[in-house]
Amino acid sequence: MAVNTVASTTASDSTHPGVSLGPAVALSCRECGERIPLGPHFACTACFGPLEIAYELPEGDPEALRARIEAGPDTIWRYAPLLPVPADVAAKPNLNPGFTRLVRADRLAAELGVTGELHVKDDSGNPTHSFKDRVVAIAVEAARAFGFTTLSCSSTGNLAGAVGAAAARAGLRSCVFIPHDLEQGKVVMAAVYGGDLVGIEGTYDDVNRFCSELIGDPAGEGWGFVNVNLRPYYAEGSKTLAYEICEQLGWRLPDQLVVPIASGSQLTKIDKGLRELIALGLVEDRPYKIFGAQAEGCSPVSQAFKGGHDVVRPVRPDTIAKSLAIGNPADGPYVLDIARRTGGAVEDVTDAQVVDAIKLLARTEGVFAETAGGVTVGVTRKLIENGLLDPTLTTVVLNTGDGLKTLDAVAPTTGPSAVIRPSLDAFRAAGLA
Amino acid sequence: MAVNTVASTTASDSTHPGVSLGPAVALSCRECGERIPLGPHFACTACFGPLEIAYELPEGDPEALRARIEAGPDTIWRYAPLLPVPADVAAKPNLNPGFTRLVRADRLAAELGVTGELHVKDDSGNPTHSFKDRVVAIAVEAARAFGFTTLSCSSTGNLAGAVGAAAARAGLRSCVFIPHDLEQGKVVMAAVYGGDLVGIEGTYDDVNRFCSELIGDPAGEGWGFVNVNLRPYYAEGSKTLAYEICEQLGWRLPDQLVVPIASGSQLTKIDKGLRELIALGLVEDRPYKIFGAQAEGCSPVSQAFKGGHDVVRPVRPDTIAKSLAIGNPADGPYVLDIARRTGGAVEDVTDAQVVDAIKLLARTEGVFAETAGGVTVGVTRKLIENGLLDPTLTTVVLNTGDGLKTLDAVAPTTGPSAVIRPSLDAFRAAGLA
Ligand SMILES: [Zn+2]
Ligand SMILES: [Zn+2]
Repeated sequence: MAVNTVASTTASDSTHPGVSLGPAVALSCRECGERIPLGPHFACTACFGPLEIAYELPEGDPEALRARIEAGPDTIWRYAPLLPVPADVAAKPNLNPGFTRLVRADRLAAELGVTGELHVKDDSGNPTHSFKDRVVAIAVEAARAFGFTTLSCSSTGNLAGAVGAAAARAGLRSCVFIPHDLEQGKVVMAAVYGGDLVGIEGTYDDVNRFCSELIGDPAGEGWGFVNVNLRPYYAEGSKTLAYEICEQLGWRLPDQLVVPIASGSQLTKIDKGLRELIALGLVEDRPYKIFGAQAEGCSPVSQAFKGGHDVVRPVRPDTIAKSLAIGNPADGPYVLDIARRTGGAVEDVTDAQVVDAIKLLARTEGVFAETAGGVTVGVTRKLIENGLLDPTLTTVVLNTGDGLKTLDAVAPTTGPSAVIRPSLDAFRAAGLA
Repeated sequence: MAVNTVASTTASDSTHPGVSLGPAVALSCRECGERIPLGPHFACTACFGPLEIAYELPEGDPEALRARIEAGPDTIWRYAPLLPVPADVAAKPNLNPGFTRLVRADRLAAELGVTGELHVKDDSGNPTHSFKDRVVAIAVEAARAFGFTTLSCSSTGNLAGAVGAAAARAGLRSCVFIPHDLEQGKVVMAAVYGGDLVGIEGTYDDVNRFCSELIGDPAGEGWGFVNVNLRPYYAEGSKTLAYEICEQLGWRLPDQLVVPIASGSQLTKIDKGLRELIALGLVEDRPYKIFGAQAEGCSPVSQAFKGGHDVVRPVRPDTIAKSLAIGNPADGPYVLDIARRTGGAVEDVTDAQVVDAIKLLARTEGVFAETAGGVTVGVTRKLIENGLLDPTLTTVVLNTGDGLKTLDAVAPTTGPSAVIRPSLDAFRAAGLA
């Protein structure tokens, strides 16, 4: 990253004294603990470490907070007291993501040999059908707070649609950057919301490099890149998955969670959310285990976990699970910490196992998952087989996206049972009666 | 329809005395009023007219009923006291559809010149992303009540996925019939839930004819065809759209609703639901207008309305709005009655207007609608232009499905703003900064 880029994303150039983002009080460095005022920054002024949100969370009676949450809207905004958003966030035009179904998966449990409670947190029910609506919704509030008028990102999939839709609804301009050779279906999903969509002649890495340049350039003035200069805010959206899971379980921690790993951010924020609920007294303080799931073709964190390493060695992704295909996951080391600290693990499955798992989930529960959901269900099966996940406990498996967006994964092996003439004789002959 | 088919679908052959479907007490003929016991029947024994559910709805304090509903789950099952389902329905494995977002559409309103409240009821948030999950969920309960073990339908789209998913979740077998030459994407969506999918060599009419034969044949014994022998139950699912809209408006009737017309069943059931809410005292008794929306390429009801006819003359559909392409809509005459009685209208728009309306809704509200949603938004615009819809009142427009399922409609006219090299100079030259 160019030096001018880093400079423009630290706290040295501007402050936003009037900004009010609920319980968020500062940005703090995950490496050195340095605190800086809230602003569109992602790198520590002292050590260039990643920044995250520091809160002053509500104190007092957990019952009162629980009642306040339960009386809120059926969206992530019920948790506004725990998020970096203004108190009146629910009244502003936004996509109202979240509070998606927690599916009790008894039929899947039976096939996996799970005798405890098994649940699937199905985020395909979000407005643009992936968990990205959660994180983008928080980034939109930060963008409004910092006076940005254009919402931007680089993307090869879910994020493009989530940003386009959220910006349209909020009345912000959007400008999304994609590799020029994306499949037409994905281009349509990114472009239909009417923002600007720019194809970049190059790879996804080239797109990202270009976006980093743009942030440091006058041409990018007033632009909020949801996963770059708004990243500390954006990332907090994943905490809501933890909140919802616990509330939907009756304000109870699950014993085990299986979470997909792309950058690793989602897993670390789910852990953060669970710890907050414990600290606030909203759930009982008891152990939980977090398991990370990757596709074998992009499994740098899983390789590091199994090898006993603290360092994640970058890989070149080669998997059908494209929404998880980040070869150099920024939060990989934090994921390793959490898996080890909680007694979880990180595991990976082959693309063939991903496809099998998508079909297994669809066949048993009527949930058609994106490839990332195939990764978590497949890894759950593998973790049970190798004895790392206890099938007698309460387990929650995340599905973070929709099968409609990755039809190609199952298409080659999914088709009619039979093709027949329209006659009863033909039907009986096909053996389906 | 063959005589043996009719015989097997009337009440003469079997009764189900032990069946308990909540407030549903009988089937009654919409033509002659004849009542017969609850069972898997769709044709009146006296006049072969269509059957619908007769209820004994809860009496007494509206406030108590309202409170009971509001304390229920965030799904259609909150309205179980008003539906033909067992009281414990929410505890059974099902897809839990409904309670989808009612989107306050201020930006769309501004573009359409609407100064009153404009809302979009966005049913793309259902589990398989169309309103069909509502009707199928009710049909599943009827299938269980009547001891059916296979769930079936003919379909070219949304219904196939809804039936496959619902059956999988409920642990029922499914067998869905489609024309053999459907696009691969739709085949995958129908097949992924693991039920039997049968391609029929012929047109959609041939598929339907074959299903009618199968219902009258021993090979179809124990099969519930959701939109044939379970149709009276299935159709009631659409009432929940009316209930949700009023509850989400704060237990208030909208002044105007714009509803798509395929068979016309949905529109008639929305009217039925609104009248029930009035009768129960859950909303104030005041006038509302229901407007029907069709695509010009399949507009038999719109033509009849504009021509002042009571009879709907069948047409051969030719439109991109395939989920509405029923050329001989069974409930067409009832729709005409309702539009005329309430002071509404039926209107149609061209395919080009459908595409424009899909993009308008996406650009203003971040809602990516199926072609059917383009039809309702397009018709809303046209109704305002020709003075039939009052832009100063509260209006609700239905989007019944998801744009991801009809990407082809917008693909030819939706793409990148620019394709550039990854450089700031190229970006500035493209005029997007
Ligand atoms: Zn630092
Ligand atoms: Zn009759």
